[in-house]
Amino acid sequence: MEVLEEETVYSGRIFDLKVHKIRLGSGRVIRREFVEHPGAVAIIAVKGDRILLIRQYRHPVRGWIIEIPAGTLEEGESPEQCARRELEEETGYRARKLKEVFKAYVAPGYSSELIHFFLAEELEEGVSKPEEDEITQVIWLDTRSVLEMISKGEVRDLKTISAVLWIASQGL
Amino acid sequence: MEVLEEETVYSGRIFDLKVHKIRLGSGRVIRREFVEHPGAVAIIAVKGDRILLIRQYRHPVRGWIIEIPAGTLEEGESPEQCARRELEEETGYRARKLKEVFKAYVAPGYSSELIHFFLAEELEEGVSKPEEDEITQVIWLDTRSVLEMISKGEVRDLKTISAVLWIASQGL
Repeated sequence: MEVLEEETVYSGRIFDLKVHKIRLGSGRVIRREFVEHPGAVAIIAVKGDRILLIRQYRHPVRGWIIEIPAGTLEEGESPEQCARRELEEETGYRARKLKEVFKAYVAPGYSSELIHFFLAEELEEGVSKPEEDEITQVIWLDTRSVLEMISKGEVRDLKTISAVLWIASQGL
Repeated sequence: MEVLEEETVYSGRIFDLKVHKIRLGSGRVIRREFVEHPGAVAIIAVKGDRILLIRQYRHPVRGWIIEIPAGTLEEGESPEQCARRELEEETGYRARKLKEVFKAYVAPGYSSELIHFFLAEELEEGVSKPEEDEITQVIWLDTRSVLEMISKGEVRDLKTISAVLWIASQGL
């Protein structure tokens, strides 16, 4: 694949929107519009059979939804540093054990975003300090309840669904 | 939440990019930039312990990745119609049994996209007819192999990871 032309059609706070003209292996020339994203982390924080969740207003989907803690990589920050920062900012918790368990593209058809998923264990409670325009509420739920909420459509965030199914697959 | 101003900063082939100025419940006024997306479907097609996957070039992530069949809702199309169309276009298969099993936002922080996940069973083989600029290859893998590929980082698409973990959770 060869990029023949590239244009930044919008430069945003978190991401840019790019349009590329590319030549495929077959010789055909096509246009692709996509979000250029710095990447993110998501934190699967567990204590016994419970998982740490937050409830927050998400304007793009016009509603309050339940998600695991997550956030965008800042410049020069490693995924692990970002995971520690976001976990503490959003929930107040610090993890004595933290390790990356898998990573995933959220929408590879139109976004470059890669999320690094971390398992956080041995949590110490502290004080959360959410960003001023984040409205969040911390909740602990046992994974069995979350699995039921997924099948009822009450938990609808894909990274959260993956996280809870991953916990179930590990027998955690 | 009240939308005070809205602007379409880019109108694309699949999605629009919007900027909204909104007033939060607290009275604070903030800006939110996000992708307005028509929604999509993803198909978890199984035969015995194997799952139907496709390998395709995804320019936003600059690589060939393994995914379950999926596609964007067309105007006036129901999620179920879309699932039948995309499954046949991308893989040639038709499903005698098809049902929605869960739905999820892929990136609720910056995209309105909701994916409807369908379980497809009792598959009949036919002829695939991918769109001209889609370069795809159909593969069948047993779910255990895919779980290993996820932990090795060889399967990196979040909808595919969720689908395979969901199958494992159902004991399918």
